[in-house]
Amino acid sequence: MLKNYEIRKYQMEPEEIKESVREKREELVRQQQVIKEHKLPVFVLIEGWGAAGKGTLIGNLIKELDPRFFQVVKMQKANEDEKRKPFLWRYMEKIPEAGKFVFLDSGWLDETVDDVMHDKIDDVALEKRLRQIRTFERQLKDNGYLVVKLFLQIPPKEQKHRLDKLLENKDTSWRVDEDDILQVKKREKFEKVYDRILEATNTGYVPWNIVDAVDEKQALLQVLHLLTNQINQAVENFKILPEILHKDYPLLKMPKLAEVPLDQEMSKEEYEIELKKLQKKLKKLHNKIYRKRIPVIIAYEGWDAAGKGGNIKRLTSALDPRGFEVYPIAAPEPHEKARHYLWRFYHRLPKDGHIAIFDRTWYGRVMVERLEGFCTENDWKRAYNEINEFEKDLSDWGAVVIKFWIQIDKDTQLARFTERQNTPEKQWKITDEDWRNREKWDDYEAAIDEMIAKTSTENAPWFIIQSNNKYYARIQAIRTVIDEIEKKLNGR
Amino acid sequence: MLKNYEIRKYQMEPEEIKESVREKREELVRQQQVIKEHKLPVFVLIEGWGAAGKGTLIGNLIKELDPRFFQVVKMQKANEDEKRKPFLWRYMEKIPEAGKFVFLDSGWLDETVDDVMHDKIDDVALEKRLRQIRTFERQLKDNGYLVVKLFLQIPPKEQKHRLDKLLENKDTSWRVDEDDILQVKKREKFEKVYDRILEATNTGYVPWNIVDAVDEKQALLQVLHLLTNQINQAVENFKILPEILHKDYPLLKMPKLAEVPLDQEMSKEEYEIELKKLQKKLKKLHNKIYRKRIPVIIAYEGWDAAGKGGNIKRLTSALDPRGFEVYPIAAPEPHEKARHYLWRFYHRLPKDGHIAIFDRTWYGRVMVERLEGFCTENDWKRAYNEINEFEKDLSDWGAVVIKFWIQIDKDTQLARFTERQNTPEKQWKITDEDWRNREKWDDYEAAIDEMIAKTSTENAPWFIIQSNNKYYARIQAIRTVIDEIEKKLNGR
Repeated sequence: MLKNYEIRKYQMEPEEIKESVREKREELVRQQQVIKEHKLPVFVLIEGWGAAGKGTLIGNLIKELDPRFFQVVKMQKANEDEKRKPFLWRYMEKIPEAGKFVFLDSGWLDETVDDVMHDKIDDVALEKRLRQIRTFERQLKDNGYLVVKLFLQIPPKEQKHRLDKLLENKDTSWRVDEDDILQVKKREKFEKVYDRILEATNTGYVPWNIVDAVDEKQALLQVLHLLTNQINQAVENFKILPEILHKDYPLLKMPKLAEVPLDQEMSKEEYEIELKKLQKKLKKLHNKIYRKRIPVIIAYEGWDAAGKGGNIKRLTSALDPRGFEVYPIAAPEPHEKARHYLWRFYHRLPKDGHIAIFDRTWYGRVMVERLEGFCTENDWKRAYNEINEFEKDLSDWGAVVIKFWIQIDKDTQLARFTERQNTPEKQWKITDEDWRNREKWDDYEAAIDEMIAKTSTENAPWFIIQSNNKYYARIQAIRTVIDEIEKKLNGR
Repeated sequence: MLKNYEIRKYQMEPEEIKESVREKREELVRQQQVIKEHKLPVFVLIEGWGAAGKGTLIGNLIKELDPRFFQVVKMQKANEDEKRKPFLWRYMEKIPEAGKFVFLDSGWLDETVDDVMHDKIDDVALEKRLRQIRTFERQLKDNGYLVVKLFLQIPPKEQKHRLDKLLENKDTSWRVDEDDILQVKKREKFEKVYDRILEATNTGYVPWNIVDAVDEKQALLQVLHLLTNQINQAVENFKILPEILHKDYPLLKMPKLAEVPLDQEMSKEEYEIELKKLQKKLKKLHNKIYRKRIPVIIAYEGWDAAGKGGNIKRLTSALDPRGFEVYPIAAPEPHEKARHYLWRFYHRLPKDGHIAIFDRTWYGRVMVERLEGFCTENDWKRAYNEINEFEKDLSDWGAVVIKFWIQIDKDTQLARFTERQNTPEKQWKITDEDWRNREKWDDYEAAIDEMIAKTSTENAPWFIIQSNNKYYARIQAIRTVIDEIEKKLNGR
């Protein structure tokens, strides 16, 4: 894209450009109101050569905007904590809320080019990452985001000239870093790498825009045109539904819930002996995954009163408490609701070497949100693939992903509800909502069958745990966690 | 405290200890329910010598607890971003939500001792920090937190023995770090520093508890006793109101709002010339504070329709967008409401060298929360001092703190409300709530007068900006920001 890039210049007088900039800026200010009304989040990624003028451009862009509704983020190099998360984690953190702008000063392009140039990733890792970036951008777009990607292009001579000028003055020399100088030295190699990545992420849904950045005013006008146009387009296309994709993830053959036997028994004695043994084993494994920096993500779903809480407790009491987190997931808070529905789960991903346990999960999208109408049909139908993609990214990052469906039958639920109702210390566990959900058992069962069938992948399988007998269920869950971690450790 | 510490041992048989531990653990499990009901947050800080068994103790403590309602945090050394925040920032980040436990594995004691031992802070800085720690703990306590501080004590020989043993085995040697070894080498010096800090932070409201950690089981029992007792006490004392303090901060003499003249005029022409000049100046200053790593915090309060938004916009359009953030503050979200009311402002503090602008602020406590009854009388009466303390900490950190009250009269507000109502593009700016608040003008005015009188300190003064003429107000605000930054840069 850079190689064959031909400089497009406006054939305009300075006065004309000034006037056009003024007009376009006014339009952008009006659009700020429009995006607020439409709850459109606008994510603007500004990449480009060192000294191409990214900062100045952003300064010019936001001049008239209401600062309560935009944010400018200058990405720094990933710190130690960020390095222990998936590559895209810190970008996901920064996505705008509905109705707001985020301008990102350098981002996943810059970081990836640097990693290639410094030999931090090989070709295989690069291809994986490019796929992740495409998925990330497409998911944002499908979930109502406008993502605008700009690359500020300047010729090599111009870049050298600018950097030299910055270096001359001690008030500006601190702005030039080693990477900028490296870019000048190895411009051709950089150009090749940039081009490869630009091309690989130049998709129909989120294309790159190359901006001629030699002249500051022209660049500004070009970007104002691009941005206002793309916002208009996004608003116009607001009601066009995104395609429902079914990527070809190898799915495991799973039974329907009705086919799952629930007759396994286990005595308290047997349970206690077994539990002790397994907890000891798990404790050792926890140490190993900590040292090998393997992240583990355990997702719990199941019927109300199926015994998720008790099950989780038996798991965690074997673990070093400094190495795990349990996240009870309830309805999203406003700042969560204002973002991509997977955001709050990304946000809670563990550091590598740590374990995150989710008590209810992102599968809410295809259960409660589907059945209660908290999202559209298109939303939940798209979600199976989006979730498979999310979990694939987690596996690619090196994570062990384990998903439990804790299964009981309707009679067992009734018995447990009744017991909770009649036991003062347990009454807090039962709410009217539980009873209401129970009435929708059949609808939920159908949705769950569909969910399990469509999202049980090789890298992130569902495990249906029979839990009419809670002892049996706990043992099964711990055993599964041990198995899956061992598989990972043994490279299976 | 360590020097004169006498080892207290339970005169109990191992079987008795085991039985007592079992009982106390059960009590703790029951208390988990109690703290949930009382919305009591419990913050347990576990400090002690290296290899004293902090991790093991925590593991033993949480064994039977429901993992959805506690969190264990192992504090790491501050990363680069954290170093650019106030010292206590990252601890404030970790305070528990109402009804939950947080167990902190090392914290502000450990970090302070390390900083002293590595000569990172001098005596003056240490005294400042100790004062901050006491304030932090007292504020938590006054705001309904139970803070339990434990120090795990082992004799020097025991420590050396344990570290040697850990170092022998490659599966455990990675757990020993340089600081542990340093502690053994310089035990006496460490002991002195520990003692000084322990004593300085051993307050009546949040005392230290020295735990004999030679025997793991005895230590566990001792801590279970302490913890369950302190929870019982906290619950029993739940309704006892904290004292209302008025620390002796030098207050500036401020006028009442009714005395503030509002007759200043400024023409559009004069405004535009002046604005350009001041924005240019501010731009340069922004560069300087960035390079000198001075944090700037600008707080905007004012009547509805006083012109806060427009005022902020003129300020920010002079700034490098990568160096500031604007935070519109609305009603707290659930996770914010579940914590100390200053938490969400701490959370949004800028990195040093950056500017944070708050559109409405922590002063909500003594305005809307006071008048609408969202907090108790004791809460808002305490808040004047708590806020003065908060702002003093910010100044001590090196921040410039500027607080604006944007003042208009009632007629001007009415005129602006009416205009908003009648202008389609502006209707989103006016809500029924604005009209309701207007009816309470007099109550608000009295509250604001009290607030300004009690919180205009030398280090964080209020500036009342006349805003019947918006041009005049904007110029005044920018001028004030420039003045205050220059004062700081000139060391005045």
